[in-house]
Amino acid sequence: MQLFWLSLLPCLYVTSLCTAEQGLEFPSFDGKDRVLHINERNYKKALKRFDMLCLLYHEPQPAHKGRQKQLQMTELVLELTAQVLEDKDIGFGMVDSQKDAKVAKKLGLEEEGSLYIFKDDRVIEFDGEFSADTLVEFLLDVLEDPVELISNPMELRAFERMEEDIRLIGYFKGEDSYYKAFQEASERFQPYIKFFATFDKATAKHLSLKMNEVNFYEPFMEEPAILPGRQLSEMEIVEFVHQHKRATLRKLRAEDMFETWEDDLDGIHIVAFAEEEDPDGYEFLEILKDVARDNTNNPELSIVWIDPDDFPLLTTYWEKTFKVNLFKPQIGVVNVTDADSVWLDMSNDEDLPTAEELEDWIEDVLSGKVNTEDDDDVKDDYDYDGDV
Amino acid sequence: MQLFWLSLLPCLYVTSLCTAEQGLEFPSFDGKDRVLHINERNYKKALKRFDMLCLLYHEPQPAHKGRQKQLQMTELVLELTAQVLEDKDIGFGMVDSQKDAKVAKKLGLEEEGSLYIFKDDRVIEFDGEFSADTLVEFLLDVLEDPVELISNPMELRAFERMEEDIRLIGYFKGEDSYYKAFQEASERFQPYIKFFATFDKATAKHLSLKMNEVNFYEPFMEEPAILPGRQLSEMEIVEFVHQHKRATLRKLRAEDMFETWEDDLDGIHIVAFAEEEDPDGYEFLEILKDVARDNTNNPELSIVWIDPDDFPLLTTYWEKTFKVNLFKPQIGVVNVTDADSVWLDMSNDEDLPTAEELEDWIEDVLSGKVNTEDDDDVKDDYDYDGDV
Repeated sequence: MQLFWLSLLPCLYVTSLCTAEQGLEFPSFDGKDRVLHINERNYKKALKRFDMLCLLYHEPQPAHKGRQKQLQMTELVLELTAQVLEDKDIGFGMVDSQKDAKVAKKLGLEEEGSLYIFKDDRVIEFDGEFSADTLVEFLLDVLEDPVELISNPMELRAFERMEEDIRLIGYFKGEDSYYKAFQEASERFQPYIKFFATFDKATAKHLSLKMNEVNFYEPFMEEPAILPGRQLSEMEIVEFVHQHKRATLRKLRAEDMFETWEDDLDGIHIVAFAEEEDPDGYEFLEILKDVARDNTNNPELSIVWIDPDDFPLLTTYWEKTFKVNLFKPQIGVVNVTDADSVWLDMSNDEDLPTAEELEDWIEDVLSGKVNTEDDDDVKDDYDYDGDV
Repeated sequence: MQLFWLSLLPCLYVTSLCTAEQGLEFPSFDGKDRVLHINERNYKKALKRFDMLCLLYHEPQPAHKGRQKQLQMTELVLELTAQVLEDKDIGFGMVDSQKDAKVAKKLGLEEEGSLYIFKDDRVIEFDGEFSADTLVEFLLDVLEDPVELISNPMELRAFERMEEDIRLIGYFKGEDSYYKAFQEASERFQPYIKFFATFDKATAKHLSLKMNEVNFYEPFMEEPAILPGRQLSEMEIVEFVHQHKRATLRKLRAEDMFETWEDDLDGIHIVAFAEEEDPDGYEFLEILKDVARDNTNNPELSIVWIDPDDFPLLTTYWEKTFKVNLFKPQIGVVNVTDADSVWLDMSNDEDLPTAEELEDWIEDVLSGKVNTEDDDDVKDDYDYDGDV
């Protein structure tokens, strides 16, 4: 890579800032090539050489200048990631979807722009924000044990606090038990879905877990779905996860944002914006959680919650695209094919809508009464308390 | 700026990824110059023209090529920030510490590499991670009201959950009251320190707030410091904040990380690494909070808590520099002049240290018994239960 002087943007300048004090030096790209160009001759060797191999499956070298630069930038992000993780025995490579079509087919690469991570005998697809921050954090998560053990009340509290995430927890006799199948299953979902296990009677009792039972906690739900305790196979657990994994309320996360967005329901998403750190946003989110809990058995409902604080670079883009003010909570319907949208009008009232009012609106969305097309020539927004 | 093709790294490629679905397009730099080069002729006009003006005070054009590029990258980060915030009426400029020394003096710019934000008649210094993400989020925070009103039990719960932040809350009669001085004071600390107010009797009662009283909550503390209710002036409140603002336990945040790091005690920091999302990390953090609560009146103690999840690009750098494994919680002493460090050995035991054991170790640090120099030719780490 010739562009070695492009020290990476998220990290620049900082080194020169703090000359007097040491301990917070952000890395900048050192110019050394670490990313391999994968082809038929070298791919087997690369797979053998590293504990983990990350391959970016990309479009052929584009003719358009802007897109060429974008591809170079992508490679740079990968180079910086490789540099930062240098001591972790992770290989990085690029696979051209045209020139290396044969290798891609052999390796099962399908989606251009995705990063495929080969670890042991499984493949993990990364379809999130392509920045060095997000990638490094994601890969460090993949390096951790896929199952975390819960063995005391404090760790149990940590487990119970993670309401934003999909979590499974199983109770087993010990390492040498049906735990093994649970562990195998966990590897298929790492790091997207969190797996926990306990060998501790008191912890199991607190969670009402029977021996060999596996519980699935949907985000924000208090009651788990239960896979009864018996000799569970890896495939039974995998099947159980697939059956439950689309949540009624799910938070958009940088590490799988595009995958979440692609998983629309009939071409639309119900999207809620709420800053959890903000009192108004927190209140709205609590109402939303109530609604989700009441409707958790409705397979047609899956609300995407976006905390604008997690995506500062997208905030003004969303404000422009959706014509909403994101300093306040918002909920609306977005058509994913054209980003056309319609939003619940919460501007005239001091109070946020109640859970019942929100449910009525959501019913109207699901029945098609509220949709992104009807408003296109009407001026007024939908008003939840009836005064349009 | 000629380098318009350098579409910004944190955001690249993504546009070309999701052609089928709309709604998540990260911005890339469009090549338009928005950042002004500030000099004696244009600075007054710039101050008048914008609601808010952000000036980067930078070193003179360096002779060294690598540093030249770093300066260009910095400007690019500023350009992308300006583009993203285009509709918010914020101006951006660069001030050369040599060429524009006179202007800098007039404006009171002192620290090279800092960004100075001029809003109304006050100046806010930004000394955090210089990335577009962090900057945009910071500036959006500056645009919000400096005081948030708490008016119902749900908002109160949101307030009580923010234990990581320094928070002030005051109880006033209404907008037209001693609230005004509180509001003025809040502007001096925005957005670093959060100010809340309530005009609601029930909220005040829940917090045991008397009329016109102001309470200061140090991070992680349950009991506030109290500024008794009477006619408080802006300066009294400002003084009160300054007196309390260095916390016994403070979390490192991207938006003021360098400022926090510069605020060392006798050249050292006690640094704790703990992932809050990890059961082990959570447990360690709870122990640490206990220790902080027990020692909140010790002015010599200020522990910097770093959640590695917040700084993925620094994680492996810290592992190398400090020779620690950050998949597990760690606590140590870091000398900020050379990043030399010594860490409490927690490797041999299954259990984490108790609050008492941690306090003993901290006492040894404060008395100088544990320090970063002594271990330089000794192999063993300090072991908290005595078996070295």
